[in-house]
Amino acid sequence: MKATCFFGNHDIRVEEMPEPTIEQPTDALVRVTLGSICGSDLHYYHSGDELGFPPGVRTGHECLGTIEAVGAEVTEFVAGDRVLVFPLPVDGTCRYCRDGAWPCVVGPGAFGYGPGFWPYGGDVQGCQSEFLRVPYARGTLTRMPEAASGPEHEHALLTCIDNLATGWHGVVTANLAPGENVLVIGDGGVGLGSVASARAKGAEQVICLGHHADRLAIAAGMGATETVESRDPDEVRSRVMELTDGEGVHVVVQTISGADTMALSQACARHCGAVSCIGMEQFVGRIPGVDWVDQFLRNITITGGIQPGPVYVAELADLVARGAIDPSPMFTHTLPLADAAEGYRMMAERDPGVVKVALAPGS
Amino acid sequence: MKATCFFGNHDIRVEEMPEPTIEQPTDALVRVTLGSICGSDLHYYHSGDELGFPPGVRTGHECLGTIEAVGAEVTEFVAGDRVLVFPLPVDGTCRYCRDGAWPCVVGPGAFGYGPGFWPYGGDVQGCQSEFLRVPYARGTLTRMPEAASGPEHEHALLTCIDNLATGWHGVVTANLAPGENVLVIGDGGVGLGSVASARAKGAEQVICLGHHADRLAIAAGMGATETVESRDPDEVRSRVMELTDGEGVHVVVQTISGADTMALSQACARHCGAVSCIGMEQFVGRIPGVDWVDQFLRNITITGGIQPGPVYVAELADLVARGAIDPSPMFTHTLPLADAAEGYRMMAERDPGVVKVALAPGS
Repeated sequence: MKATCFFGNHDIRVEEMPEPTIEQPTDALVRVTLGSICGSDLHYYHSGDELGFPPGVRTGHECLGTIEAVGAEVTEFVAGDRVLVFPLPVDGTCRYCRDGAWPCVVGPGAFGYGPGFWPYGGDVQGCQSEFLRVPYARGTLTRMPEAASGPEHEHALLTCIDNLATGWHGVVTANLAPGENVLVIGDGGVGLGSVASARAKGAEQVICLGHHADRLAIAAGMGATETVESRDPDEVRSRVMELTDGEGVHVVVQTISGADTMALSQACARHCGAVSCIGMEQFVGRIPGVDWVDQFLRNITITGGIQPGPVYVAELADLVARGAIDPSPMFTHTLPLADAAEGYRMMAERDPGVVKVALAPGS
Repeated sequence: MKATCFFGNHDIRVEEMPEPTIEQPTDALVRVTLGSICGSDLHYYHSGDELGFPPGVRTGHECLGTIEAVGAEVTEFVAGDRVLVFPLPVDGTCRYCRDGAWPCVVGPGAFGYGPGFWPYGGDVQGCQSEFLRVPYARGTLTRMPEAASGPEHEHALLTCIDNLATGWHGVVTANLAPGENVLVIGDGGVGLGSVASARAKGAEQVICLGHHADRLAIAAGMGATETVESRDPDEVRSRVMELTDGEGVHVVVQTISGADTMALSQACARHCGAVSCIGMEQFVGRIPGVDWVDQFLRNITITGGIQPGPVYVAELADLVARGAIDPSPMFTHTLPLADAAEGYRMMAERDPGVVKVALAPGS
């Protein structure tokens, strides 16, 4: 079978390798019908060498597909089931899994960050491939809604496991209430997922800030009531204040979280507002750019983090199935899996018109 | 009448001055029956000169009393009403006041910090006095519950306008749910108010961290299930983990918020936990001590801020009236108003057995 691997910075190759097999009784074997490249894959695309990723590790954490086989202890699924694969293997037994609060990934403390299934640090699994061994199938897989299990919904459903779910996490952790105003900072996949989530949650105004007119046009199509294309923080803040009677927004969804944009988030947040950070431009040690005195005196909450996908995925997939939300326009391109390297390049170099690239193993 | 004034660092004096009068039709004139010294008063006690406070300004933002007179537009109160005075004048008309979300203090942007009524920067009003002109009586005053309007409840009610309300704000902004575990960092008035609030909200374990055995004994009496007296972060964390099955607490209420204790807060917080900062050791420009990568990957929320007293005060006063909560033990001493300077000294020098000092104008 074919699988995409990292061989060094800017060196992604599709390799031939043996099909995976059931190794544990809790495993499932999934034939991938659609995978995709995430904005966070670009971290190792640009800097995997520095991050210590070994050459040859498999890549990708976003896919859906059809179950080929299950281990002896998997009673929830059978071969032929159409499933969404959560990016982090979740064994579903610990308190965090049961509470559904957090992607604890096989027990607290097991979290890691790698190019394939994130927590395994590039061990063996990667979603940009033809087949995938899925550990802890019971917690990691979610059955597709019957009404949306056909191929015409695959792109929309594929967003439910990561980019849309991450945007959803942004508005959930910020306690967004209907009628409130939202500023989404960033116009990538997560930004677009945030726009769609904010609208689905009943936000009145959804302002999307970005640097790409083509992406912002997609944001408008997905529900942004206003788009702002600017790199000037003063201009952005003025526009936000103008749109919100001088008060600022209730919620800022921050998909970048660099020092500049964090300061901007705070400046655009209303008293008692929330800044929800669901994407990180870089993994720095200290929270950047936040004026704490202002945060304290104006009761600003900083929240967000990693989306607990298994909590949201069924609800989101149902919204997609009912046509209540359509995040599929964030996929601007679908390439054959064999062209994965070109997909990475297109996204990394921000080719005009490119937001997110899907990879179709069958084509 | 007598009123307490700041004349320079460590120089507090009780001065004779004219009784205030109704100046605006929205004013009320209140005869103070009990005032008190807040931990935050010690900021200017130690550093008022550096903070730019002019000599002679009146001090204090905590008191309750009896209405002597009201302005022409005040229809909610009459002379003789027993009232709690919120530390920040609140006009009650803007969106924030109506939402009850934030002590906006006569419109957004009007916030200041002074030794008297906070927002006036030491203009004319101060609660450590015999009489007080209260601006915007409608929003700033709350009628005492009938059942608790007698002098025997004054100390408990007095906490409802600030120290208890601030602790309450800590657990409210952290979304504390019944059965969860809480770590309160600090054993001063706000720490004790946080302990009482956490218990009243149904916390299972309430661990109070402090440096004073006498204060921690009061914390235990107010509902702390465990007290920890230590200056060693590793020891504190070990104890917290031991008490919480190695998971950490759901909520850390942070009354100090210095760099060391912020790092400790984060280390003691469970995945998906919240750190609610309701007190600041010092007003620094940047949020101190927070490891943002850990915060992001573990979904830690940072929240808190200034308590929106008018929202909470009636509920808290009712809890006091019903005997459901008794925060009065935080008042370890009651001095005549004339001895205010000694009260400041006792608190500032952390005399043994002293937590919070009340000032009785009538004695």
